[in-house]
Amino acid sequence: MDGSLEAISRSSARRPVIGVMGAGESASTADCALGERLGERIAAEGWVLLTGGRDAGVMAAAIRGAKRIEGSLTLGILPSASGPVAPGLDVAIFTGMGNARNAINVLSSRVVVACGAGGAGTASEVALALKSGVPVVLVGVSVTVERFFRRLGGTLRVTRSDEAAIAGIRDVLSVSPA
Amino acid sequence: MDGSLEAISRSSARRPVIGVMGAGESASTADCALGERLGERIAAEGWVLLTGGRDAGVMAAAIRGAKRIEGSLTLGILPSASGPVAPGLDVAIFTGMGNARNAINVLSSRVVVACGAGGAGTASEVALALKSGVPVVLVGVSVTVERFFRRLGGTLRVTRSDEAAIAGIRDVLSVSPA
Amino acid sequence: MDGSLEAISRSSARRPVIGVMGAGESASTADCALGERLGERIAAEGWVLLTGGRDAGVMAAAIRGAKRIEGSLTLGILPSASGPVAPGLDVAIFTGMGNARNAINVLSSRVVVACGAGGAGTASEVALALKSGVPVVLVGVSVTVERFFRRLGGTLRVTRSDEAAIAGIRDVLSVSPA
Amino acid sequence: MDGSLEAISRSSARRPVIGVMGAGESASTADCALGERLGERIAAEGWVLLTGGRDAGVMAAAIRGAKRIEGSLTLGILPSASGPVAPGLDVAIFTGMGNARNAINVLSSRVVVACGAGGAGTASEVALALKSGVPVVLVGVSVTVERFFRRLGGTLRVTRSDEAAIAGIRDVLSVSPA
Repeated sequence: MDGSLEAISRSSARRPVIGVMGAGESASTADCALGERLGERIAAEGWVLLTGGRDAGVMAAAIRGAKRIEGSLTLGILPSASGPVAPGLDVAIFTGMGNARNAINVLSSRVVVACGAGGAGTASEVALALKSGVPVVLVGVSVTVERFFRRLGGTLRVTRSDEAAIAGIRDVLSVSPA
Repeated sequence: MDGSLEAISRSSARRPVIGVMGAGESASTADCALGERLGERIAAEGWVLLTGGRDAGVMAAAIRGAKRIEGSLTLGILPSASGPVAPGLDVAIFTGMGNARNAINVLSSRVVVACGAGGAGTASEVALALKSGVPVVLVGVSVTVERFFRRLGGTLRVTRSDEAAIAGIRDVLSVSPA
Repeated sequence: MDGSLEAISRSSARRPVIGVMGAGESASTADCALGERLGERIAAEGWVLLTGGRDAGVMAAAIRGAKRIEGSLTLGILPSASGPVAPGLDVAIFTGMGNARNAINVLSSRVVVACGAGGAGTASEVALALKSGVPVVLVGVSVTVERFFRRLGGTLRVTRSDEAAIAGIRDVLSVSPA
Repeated sequence: MDGSLEAISRSSARRPVIGVMGAGESASTADCALGERLGERIAAEGWVLLTGGRDAGVMAAAIRGAKRIEGSLTLGILPSASGPVAPGLDVAIFTGMGNARNAINVLSSRVVVACGAGGAGTASEVALALKSGVPVVLVGVSVTVERFFRRLGGTLRVTRSDEAAIAGIRDVLSVSPA
């Protein structure tokens, strides 16, 4: 984004914040690859990327992907009170609240994307999003995961690729732009 | 519990806190009946009952059950900053944190019991418990729910009745008494 | 409190929760002695004692005082996610939120008593109480501390002894009993 | 900041986040003017501005000042779970935690600047910063306020103008750059 485009975007509404959630240390290679492509596409759309901010798994991969795009903005909501964060993170929010910060991840995202198999942390974030009325896009999940979340109600899209996930996010943003 | 028994319990270790989680306004009659029996049995064991504290569904039912037992102690961790709580609640912790308080419910319980089908809030609590290393007992859940949580790892018992749930809690407490 | 009195108290409204705040490791001997007398008097009134729950300073002293009274109930809101608590603590709420739990201490107390010189943590709790509309009783503070808090508005009583602090709490409870 | 400078800043370490705290609805005209100058200077230094994000008082003024500078980045940590924010806010973190979010404001700032007389919320933030080891710069406060905070320990600079506050922040950053 060059200076003039940036000036334009600044003068208008806030850029949408898209949360990408996924496993940390236990993430598979495929999950990380998916997270990286998602991060890059989210940044290319001009959206702000929000993750858990730690230097692990899908969080770190999504940030790495986003930082390939000039003008990208990456935001991390950390469980810790201080300390290391993922490389490429532009803004670190230190909560010192452990997993209670998962509620903040969700409330601060216009759409939450759960990327890959995920673990217990990701599961809690998807559940909190559905509880809080934040739209969720699942990418690359099993039938069990899909069935489980469908019964919780809320706005849920299930997709099979990063392209489809981005299309799902675009749909949500066009329906409820603010 | 009469005065002398109480004095004895006071002089020893803290009474274990058992968290009962379940749907609020959307709880079924069967879920509430199960919650009420669980609350009563937990209190009869001399354990402290912890719930989300609101006057709705499984929370209110479990507290109602517990208060049939003399000497019972019921603890509620409220999402609100003030206001109404479930009848029979002995101690109200007002967090003013909305669903972020789910993390506190879990960390403050020696065992988390998820009662019935549950909703998105309960799902987030079970996931946070598994993430935080707090043992979980599920009662009366579907095969999909069981399968979903089993893949998240952590200590998980699946039971079909309130008696079996209490036996499961007793097992956990005997394995890791502190 | 014998069994029958307890049954009576149970059948009626919740016992008021009184928060006692004060320095931890840096507390003076005088502050701890004051905290211990306050804890004992609060318990003797039949009120629930709430503190930060750690085994240090005024927190530990107030709990020690309260546990001299039969039927007392001591509640601790811990900054940690698990681990040690003050001896005599009946119920431990583990928040895992560090100092963010100070907001919970305040919202869960009908009255906040700040005991002695205090440190930065106590100062934040008094400020949060005044901000949140929770009445505050200061005991044994300097003129600077009194002046500082008076300019913040809110309901504030400044007292010079534990007896006067208890009288101040009684006043507040009689004015706004729920 | 033009595109190439931005690329440079992106490739290096995170831009320091400076928190500006001050009264909301009760802020004086002088406090708001000071906040606006501070926000502009902070942005001109290339630092990220963090505030409580609400459309009131010093928060809104600081953001307004910062947005006069091209390439500025304004971050707001909101007490609410959703809803309106200050005009010019680039990134809104919705916590849904009320005043408990004050702890996050402090932990996420490399330096906390308290601007003007302040109210109870600002007082809690300065106290939490001193408690958490985050350096504090006070600007335009009375002798009582200065005395009160000095006795709490921690790193505290007292200044009389926005220029002096900026110099104080620069000092802190040069001493502990990470």
